[in-house]
Amino acid sequence: MLERLPDVVNARGTHVTVPMQGSGTFAVEAMLTTFVPRTGKVLLLVNGAYGQRAKRICLVAGRRIEVHETAEDTPPDLAEIERVLKADPAITHVFTVHCETTSGILNPIAEIGALVERYGRRLLIDAMSAFGALPLDATKTKFDAVAASSNKCIEGVPGLGFVICREPALAETQGNATTLVLDLYDQWQGLAKTGQYRFTPPIHVIVSFHQALAEFWAEGGQPGRGRRYAENCQVLIDGMRELGFRTLLPDRLQAPIIVTFHMPKDAKFVFQSFYDSLKERGYVIYPGKLTVADSFRIGCIGRLNADHMRGVLAAIAQVLSELGVKSLRSAA
Amino acid sequence: MLERLPDVVNARGTHVTVPMQGSGTFAVEAMLTTFVPRTGKVLLLVNGAYGQRAKRICLVAGRRIEVHETAEDTPPDLAEIERVLKADPAITHVFTVHCETTSGILNPIAEIGALVERYGRRLLIDAMSAFGALPLDATKTKFDAVAASSNKCIEGVPGLGFVICREPALAETQGNATTLVLDLYDQWQGLAKTGQYRFTPPIHVIVSFHQALAEFWAEGGQPGRGRRYAENCQVLIDGMRELGFRTLLPDRLQAPIIVTFHMPKDAKFVFQSFYDSLKERGYVIYPGKLTVADSFRIGCIGRLNADHMRGVLAAIAQVLSELGVKSLRSAA
Repeated sequence: MLERLPDVVNARGTHVTVPMQGSGTFAVEAMLTTFVPRTGKVLLLVNGAYGQRAKRICLVAGRRIEVHETAEDTPPDLAEIERVLKADPAITHVFTVHCETTSGILNPIAEIGALVERYGRRLLIDAMSAFGALPLDATKTKFDAVAASSNKCIEGVPGLGFVICREPALAETQGNATTLVLDLYDQWQGLAKTGQYRFTPPIHVIVSFHQALAEFWAEGGQPGRGRRYAENCQVLIDGMRELGFRTLLPDRLQAPIIVTFHMPKDAKFVFQSFYDSLKERGYVIYPGKLTVADSFRIGCIGRLNADHMRGVLAAIAQVLSELGVKSLRSAA
Repeated sequence: MLERLPDVVNARGTHVTVPMQGSGTFAVEAMLTTFVPRTGKVLLLVNGAYGQRAKRICLVAGRRIEVHETAEDTPPDLAEIERVLKADPAITHVFTVHCETTSGILNPIAEIGALVERYGRRLLIDAMSAFGALPLDATKTKFDAVAASSNKCIEGVPGLGFVICREPALAETQGNATTLVLDLYDQWQGLAKTGQYRFTPPIHVIVSFHQALAEFWAEGGQPGRGRRYAENCQVLIDGMRELGFRTLLPDRLQAPIIVTFHMPKDAKFVFQSFYDSLKERGYVIYPGKLTVADSFRIGCIGRLNADHMRGVLAAIAQVLSELGVKSLRSAA
């Protein structure tokens, strides 16, 4: 099962999968604290809550950082990354989030990877919400590690993360970790030597992960799953625009994972009522997480297809009507 | 659910439960790295693999330690603990394992607690395999924290640990942690403020834990569950002695959790054959983990009762006969 996961990012034979009990953030912390040595320094590309979280992880763990932060609706500035890498040879690693679900933005992973490679640094990717849905090719974008979990685009239950690691890079990490349980090197070696997890694995979660992966491969792996989510996203955005809503992001920055919509300005649009009425109809959406704009979000991933998206659109139309919101298009 | 857990150790109103995703070791590492500040020093009482693991956690996390180690069949030396505490005022915390499953030994938690209290230090307990089965009374044995998990004596599925923390002591731990995900203070505050886990919880594991706790309380809580395990243990030991096996530990040191038996010296007793034949009959036992003696172990916990223990005894008698082991009692 774990052996086949590198295939998802075209990394068979070059990368190994190291599982990590806990939520996805456990895998991200394991990746950062195993790969960035105590003497290292990591440039963090931040444009949302998950970049901020990586920053907190590094600060708590005592890793030196440099932060390149952009607004939540703005990708990192490639020229600025280049300037920082040129100016600071102490930077050993660059960290980025593939799809930052704070806004749903798709970060330019290939361009970032090319820069990091050109300047001889190492790339670490938080691909939590992207892995298995968005393309990533290890032969083109050189990375040392990519962290993901059982319960996003793989559609398993939560409780297990994993990090796909370039084997020679992982082999260099012995002694880097500042925790025992999150030490990917030790976890890797333990599994290789004994065939067992070092510490009790969440076995029921793992069984579910097996089944989820079987369904993932049956759907055609990343291209197949990505196609379904892209269709979900397109149906959602088209329908919401039809209703008069506006997306935060231009289409070229929108990942097909979660979509942020501007909150309508119509006084009759009360978000809590909107949220509750949709929930009563069986549709749970997400409050906004942005500082740049008043917004809400709707997810496109999980066991959902275009019919579900049309269902939520019909429900939204009904709720707008109930709330007495009539003129969204002109008001927005 | 979490609110009632302190009742198990008579700590209602004084202690709070902080859950932690991952295996039990995640909870132990969270406890050690949250409660022992970077300027602290912890005296580790070691007489088996779990004490050794705590030592590794502290070394990796950069906490200063002092180790009092005794053989795997020997409880810590209370006079020596007293001498160390007197001699070294830098020691802020004492760590002990309630039941060390390496041998199955019951460590003298009340006596250790009394010493730690007398010398004004803080007690941290790894009660992984004991919690819910062996008595521990927070009003008598003063501890700052006790770590346990969903999947030992509570009989849930693995994937969630928890630490029962004395609230004023936990309140002092802000900023101690050297990891984000294992920071019990932050986890506690996050739950208190939002009612939610900071990071995706293993929800299916938690649902199972709810059910396991309902069954635990229905059985009469710790006294009821402890009684069943004690009976399991007594039936096992009596029957094994009847067959000529010898326990590693004298009865006064034996916890009713897991029992270590000396490997018989009879040349016809081949452990691998013994293990495999029992497994074929549906009974999985444990290889020994000892350095002090060649041994194997049989567990008493989980959804087992005296009939199951009689079942394994009958199977063992059959397997001995198959192996041609006849004279165990005189040979042992």
